[in-house]
Amino acid sequence: MNSSQTKVAVIGASGYAGEELVRLLLQHPFVELTTVTSRQYADRSLAEIYPRFAHLPKAQKLIFAELDATRISNASDVVFLALPHGVSAEAAADFVGLGTKIIDLSADFRLKDEQVYSEFYGKKHAAPGLLKDAVYGLPELHREEIKGGSLIACPGCYPTSVLLPLAPVLRAKVIDPARIIVASLSGVTGAGRKTEAEYLFAECNESVRPYGVPKHRHLAEIEQEIAGITGKPEAVQFTPHLVPVNRGIVSTIFTDLAGKADAIDRIFNDAYGREPFVRLLGDKSLPDTKNVAGTNFVDLAWRIDPRTNRLILMSAIDNLTKGTSGQAIQCMNLMRGYEETAGLL
Amino acid sequence: MNSSQTKVAVIGASGYAGEELVRLLLQHPFVELTTVTSRQYADRSLAEIYPRFAHLPKAQKLIFAELDATRISNASDVVFLALPHGVSAEAAADFVGLGTKIIDLSADFRLKDEQVYSEFYGKKHAAPGLLKDAVYGLPELHREEIKGGSLIACPGCYPTSVLLPLAPVLRAKVIDPARIIVASLSGVTGAGRKTEAEYLFAECNESVRPYGVPKHRHLAEIEQEIAGITGKPEAVQFTPHLVPVNRGIVSTIFTDLAGKADAIDRIFNDAYGREPFVRLLGDKSLPDTKNVAGTNFVDLAWRIDPRTNRLILMSAIDNLTKGTSGQAIQCMNLMRGYEETAGLL
Amino acid sequence: MNSSQTKVAVIGASGYAGEELVRLLLQHPFVELTTVTSRQYADRSLAEIYPRFAHLPKAQKLIFAELDATRISNASDVVFLALPHGVSAEAAADFVGLGTKIIDLSADFRLKDEQVYSEFYGKKHAAPGLLKDAVYGLPELHREEIKGGSLIACPGCYPTSVLLPLAPVLRAKVIDPARIIVASLSGVTGAGRKTEAEYLFAECNESVRPYGVPKHRHLAEIEQEIAGITGKPEAVQFTPHLVPVNRGIVSTIFTDLAGKADAIDRIFNDAYGREPFVRLLGDKSLPDTKNVAGTNFVDLAWRIDPRTNRLILMSAIDNLTKGTSGQAIQCMNLMRGYEETAGLL
Amino acid sequence: MNSSQTKVAVIGASGYAGEELVRLLLQHPFVELTTVTSRQYADRSLAEIYPRFAHLPKAQKLIFAELDATRISNASDVVFLALPHGVSAEAAADFVGLGTKIIDLSADFRLKDEQVYSEFYGKKHAAPGLLKDAVYGLPELHREEIKGGSLIACPGCYPTSVLLPLAPVLRAKVIDPARIIVASLSGVTGAGRKTEAEYLFAECNESVRPYGVPKHRHLAEIEQEIAGITGKPEAVQFTPHLVPVNRGIVSTIFTDLAGKADAIDRIFNDAYGREPFVRLLGDKSLPDTKNVAGTNFVDLAWRIDPRTNRLILMSAIDNLTKGTSGQAIQCMNLMRGYEETAGLL
Repeated sequence: MNSSQTKVAVIGASGYAGEELVRLLLQHPFVELTTVTSRQYADRSLAEIYPRFAHLPKAQKLIFAELDATRISNASDVVFLALPHGVSAEAAADFVGLGTKIIDLSADFRLKDEQVYSEFYGKKHAAPGLLKDAVYGLPELHREEIKGGSLIACPGCYPTSVLLPLAPVLRAKVIDPARIIVASLSGVTGAGRKTEAEYLFAECNESVRPYGVPKHRHLAEIEQEIAGITGKPEAVQFTPHLVPVNRGIVSTIFTDLAGKADAIDRIFNDAYGREPFVRLLGDKSLPDTKNVAGTNFVDLAWRIDPRTNRLILMSAIDNLTKGTSGQAIQCMNLMRGYEETAGLL
Repeated sequence: MNSSQTKVAVIGASGYAGEELVRLLLQHPFVELTTVTSRQYADRSLAEIYPRFAHLPKAQKLIFAELDATRISNASDVVFLALPHGVSAEAAADFVGLGTKIIDLSADFRLKDEQVYSEFYGKKHAAPGLLKDAVYGLPELHREEIKGGSLIACPGCYPTSVLLPLAPVLRAKVIDPARIIVASLSGVTGAGRKTEAEYLFAECNESVRPYGVPKHRHLAEIEQEIAGITGKPEAVQFTPHLVPVNRGIVSTIFTDLAGKADAIDRIFNDAYGREPFVRLLGDKSLPDTKNVAGTNFVDLAWRIDPRTNRLILMSAIDNLTKGTSGQAIQCMNLMRGYEETAGLL
Repeated sequence: MNSSQTKVAVIGASGYAGEELVRLLLQHPFVELTTVTSRQYADRSLAEIYPRFAHLPKAQKLIFAELDATRISNASDVVFLALPHGVSAEAAADFVGLGTKIIDLSADFRLKDEQVYSEFYGKKHAAPGLLKDAVYGLPELHREEIKGGSLIACPGCYPTSVLLPLAPVLRAKVIDPARIIVASLSGVTGAGRKTEAEYLFAECNESVRPYGVPKHRHLAEIEQEIAGITGKPEAVQFTPHLVPVNRGIVSTIFTDLAGKADAIDRIFNDAYGREPFVRLLGDKSLPDTKNVAGTNFVDLAWRIDPRTNRLILMSAIDNLTKGTSGQAIQCMNLMRGYEETAGLL
Repeated sequence: MNSSQTKVAVIGASGYAGEELVRLLLQHPFVELTTVTSRQYADRSLAEIYPRFAHLPKAQKLIFAELDATRISNASDVVFLALPHGVSAEAAADFVGLGTKIIDLSADFRLKDEQVYSEFYGKKHAAPGLLKDAVYGLPELHREEIKGGSLIACPGCYPTSVLLPLAPVLRAKVIDPARIIVASLSGVTGAGRKTEAEYLFAECNESVRPYGVPKHRHLAEIEQEIAGITGKPEAVQFTPHLVPVNRGIVSTIFTDLAGKADAIDRIFNDAYGREPFVRLLGDKSLPDTKNVAGTNFVDLAWRIDPRTNRLILMSAIDNLTKGTSGQAIQCMNLMRGYEETAGLL
C-alpha cells in the first residue's frame, strides 16, 4: 500500500459538497490540502468560513483563492472539482491539458453520450472530447477502471443509492430490468447551498414533497449504468422527494422478480460481502439515514413480497458522503494506491 | 340543512387523534362536546391536559371521565371512538346495544371480512356481528351510505391518501389495477402518542426510514376498497416511510396506463371538481404537506411519463385531519344533515 | 358592536408577515380583502403563490398588484403595510395624505424619537413628521389610543413577548426597572422570507445560536415602552437566539424584586384577567410555543426564586400572529369598533 | 506519553451518554473496550442495538452483559458508569472496593456535601464515604487532580457550558459573582433516552420551552464550583430551555462587570489559549451548536455592553460529547498519561 502524501486542491469549496470534501480531506492521513478556491469567499480563511474547522492550524492558514489552473496544477497531484455542471467541464478541460488527475463531482462527465447530456441538462456539453476517457466513479462497480483513471466522474447521490442495490440482482438476472420503480427521499443539503426561497428553513421544515416528476436529471445516469449491466437500455421510473433532514437519502426500489428468488441473500453476500462500505442488513432490519449520517456507508436491505412476487430493495446513504464527497475520496484512494478506506472510517 | 345542535362524546381523547377530534369539535358550530374519556387523565380537565385549549370555558369545564357506556349514551347523539383496535370493537358493541350512532377511528370495522382482520391484526375480531352494518367512512367514495349509517369505520390515514387518487382512474379503467405500487411518507403523529423509544425526538429527528415492509396493516383496507371498485381483488404494493414532521402524509402512486391517457385531467375534474375537500393541482404544481397541515384537504397532482407509459399520482393530506379526525367529522356532518364542511373550513 | 364590512389592502404580501395577514384576513367575518401588492409576484394570483389558500374563490380572484396608493386608497378603508423599514415610512406618507387608516407592521413608526430611529436603524427617518401621531399598537397597553388612531405602529415580535409580562410588575413597582435581563428564543420565520444563506434549512436545522448581541434593534422600542411606564429611561439587557422551529418566541425575563412579592399572582390577574388573548399559567405550568402556534395568544408564567429574590417571567407567543399580523388585526378590530377577537379565535 | 492499551468497561451503555461513550471508545487508539452492560439489552450485540457501529468486528463481538463488578473489575483498568444517579453510587462503591479506576457520568459524586445532594436529588446519598475522594472531572479547571484521581465525577452538561466561560473572569475578579444569570438552551438528548411522552418527537418538534425553573439540579454543582473559585458561596440564577435539536447546548451568561473591562480578551487568551478543546471566538463571531456537534470543543464568545456595563458570555458545546462522554474520555486520557486529545479529534 502507498503511504506517501498526495497534494490535493478543492475547486469550488463553498458549497455543501465542497465543505464535506474539505472536512474529509483535512482528516485524511495521506493528504495535504494545498488549495481551496471560491470566488465568493476569496481571500478569507477556511477557519473563518467554516468555524467547525477553526481549531485546525491548516484551516487557519488556508485562504480561499481564485481558480488559476496552472498554479493549482503545479501545486497538486489531484484536483477535486465541486463546481456547477457546465462550469465544471470547462475547468476540467483546463486541468486535463496540464496533466492533473481530476475527480469531478458535477454531472458533466457522468454521461457517455453528449446528446443525452444535452437532453437532460439543457445545454451543449462544454468539453465533449473528454467524455470517452471519463470513468464513472462508483468503486463497487468500476473499481479497476477508477484505479487507472485520470478523469473520474463521481455519481450523483440518488444514482449511488439506487445502483448499488440494483447491480447485483440485475447481474444475477433475477429481476425484470424493464420494470424498475424507485421512490427516493432526500435531505435538503442535496439541493446544495442555493439561496433560493424554496430551501429556506421555514419552507422545508414541516414539509414533505415530491419534485422533479417524472424526469429528474439523475435518471439519465441511472439508466446508462443499468444498460451497462444488462446490455439493453430500459426506462426506469424514478421519483425523488424532499424531506426535512440535513443529510441522508433513502431509496426504496420496487422490482419484479423474474422467476424464483430464494438466492437473494446469497447474491448480495457474494456481491458485497467484502465491500468495506456496504453493510448488508438482509432481513434483520431496515435502513435508517441516522445510521449512515456522516459516514461513507450504504446500508442495504431487501424483502420479497410473496403476494406480488416483487423484490423490494431499500438503501440509505449520506448524500454528501457516500453520495458525493466521501465517494470522491474513495476514488482518490484507489487512484493513488492507498487503502480504499483511508480517511473514511 | 340542519342547524340544530348535536351532543357528542369522544372516547379515548388522550391520543393525537382524540386531541385533534377535540380541537375540531370545540370549534364546530353545531356540536356540543359533552364527554371526553381517558383512563390516563381521569378527573383532570381538558384545559389542564391540552393547554392550547385553556382559554375555552368549555375546556376548563370538561373533565376526563372513565368510559361508562350507558351514561355516555344518554348524554350523546354521536360517540367517536378513538381507541386502540380490539378495544374499540368491544366499546362499539356496548354503544350499538344502546342505540347510539358510532364513528369509529380505529381499524376494527374497516374490513368486511373477519378472516382478513385476523390475518392483518393478529387477533380474532371482538364483535364480528357488527361488521356487515359498518360503513367505510370515506365520504368522497361512500357519501350516501355514510348519510344513513349508524356505525362508521373511518379509513386509515394511508388508505385515505391512496384511495382518493386511485378511485377515479380505476373507475375509468385507464390504469391496470394489478400493478399498483405505492410509496408513502408519513409524519410521526401517525404512530400515535406511543411512549416507545423509536418515536422519541432524537430517534426520529434527522432520520428517514421505511417500515412495515412488505405487508403493512393498512394494505388490507386499500385492497378491499380497490376490489370494491374493480370487482376483482388485486394485490397492491405499499411501502410506508417515517419522516421527521409532526403532521402530513405524501403518497406517490405508480400505475401502468391501460391504453391512451389524454383524459386524465377530465377524469379528475369530473370526479372531484365539486368535492369541497379535494384540491386538484393537475400539472401546475406538486403536493406539499405544509399546504394541507391542519386542514381537511387532500391535494392531488398527476403526471404521465411518456417514456414508461405510467401515470404517477401524488397526494398530500394531514394524517390527523383528513387522515383521521377531520374525516370523522366530515362523516358526522353527513349523518346529521349538516353542511359537509361545517366546522372544517 | 360594529358588524359592517371593512375593505382592506395588504401592501407587501409576499413575506411571512404578509402571508399571515392574508391568512387571517381571508377568514375574518367583517373584512373584504380588496388588494394585495407585491412587486415580486405581480400579476399572479394569491391562490397560485399560496397553495394553502387555493380552495378559496377569493384567493383565486385576487391578483397581486403593484403599489398604487391612490387606487388602493380609493378601494380600502384600512391598509396594512408589510414592507421593509424605510420603505414603509415612504408608503405611509402617501397613504396619510389620502386619508386612509394605516396599520404598519414595520419598525418605522414604533419609536417616538427620530434620533433613536437613526441610531438603531442606521438611516434617517423618511417621514419624521408622522411620528407624533403614530400609536404603538399593543392593545393590552394602549387600547384606547389605538381605537382613535389613524397610524398604528405594530410592535416587534420580541417586544410583544417582553413588554406584556413586564408591564404589570413595572406598574406595580415590584421590580427594579434598572436591572431587567431578557433572553429570547425565536423561530426562523422571525427573520422574514429572506433568501440569505444563514436562513437555509441546513444552516438552521440542528443549530442553536445567539445573535444581535448586545444591541438588537428591538431593544429601542422595549426601552421606550418601559420608560413610558416608569417615567424614567433605563437600559435593558436583551439577547435573542435563533432556534429551529418555524413559529414561536419564548422570552425569559430575569428581574430583581424590589421588596416583598407575595402579590404577583394578584398583579397579573388584575392586569390581564379579562384580556382575551393573555393566558395566565401562573405557577401551574410553563409556556411552550407549541401551545400558541397559529394563535393570537400570549401564555405567561412567573416564578419567584427565594434564593436570589428574583422574579422570573416567561412568555410564549407565535411571532407571526400575536407577534405581528394577529396583533395588527386586533388593532384593526379596535379601530373599527368590532369585537376585539373578531377573526382571531 | 503513554501508548499502551487500556481496558475499559462501560456500565449502562443503553442510554445516549453510554452510546456516545461507546462511539468514542471504539475509535480510541489506546483503548480496548472489553465490556458493555445493559439490563435492557442483555445478550444482544452492540452491532444489533446500534446499527451505526455494525461494520466494526468489535461491535459484532461485544455482547451486552449484566453488571458483575468482580468479573468486570478483573477485565478492566477503567470503568465508566453511565447509570442513573443513586444507582451509580452503589455501583461505584462496589468497584472502589475492587481497586478499579472509576469515571462516573452520573451526578452522584459531583457534590462535595451530601446535604446538598439530598436537597437537590431528593434522596440520601448511597455512598457518602466516597465523596471526599471524588474529583470533579472538568479538565480545564482540575487537570492535575484528575491525573491522580481514582474516582472522577464528570460534570453535568449545563455546568460544563457555564463554568468554562465563567472561570477565567471569576478568577480575574472582573465580574460580580453575586449577580450571575444564565439562560441555557439544550437539545433533547440532554434528557436521556427516556420513554416519556414529553420527549416524543411530536411533543418536542416545533416546541420551545423553559423548564426546571427556578431550581434545576445542575445549579448545585455550578454554585459549588464557583464558590471553589471565589471562596464564597453565591446563588446563581439558571434557567434551562428545551429546543428541538438532537445535540447541543448554548449558554448565555449575563454578568455585571466589577470595574473596567478592557482586558477580557487577554483574560480568555491567558486562560484558554493553549487548551486543546476551547475555541475562543472573541468578538469575531458567536457560538452555534452546529459547529461543535459531535466534537469535544467548547466555542466561547464574549461581548461587553457599554450601555449596561455588563459582560455577556456565550458558549456552545455538544451536550453528549464535551458535555458528557467526550469529557469523560478526556479525563481518562489524563489519568492514563495519554495525549489529552487522544481519540477525541
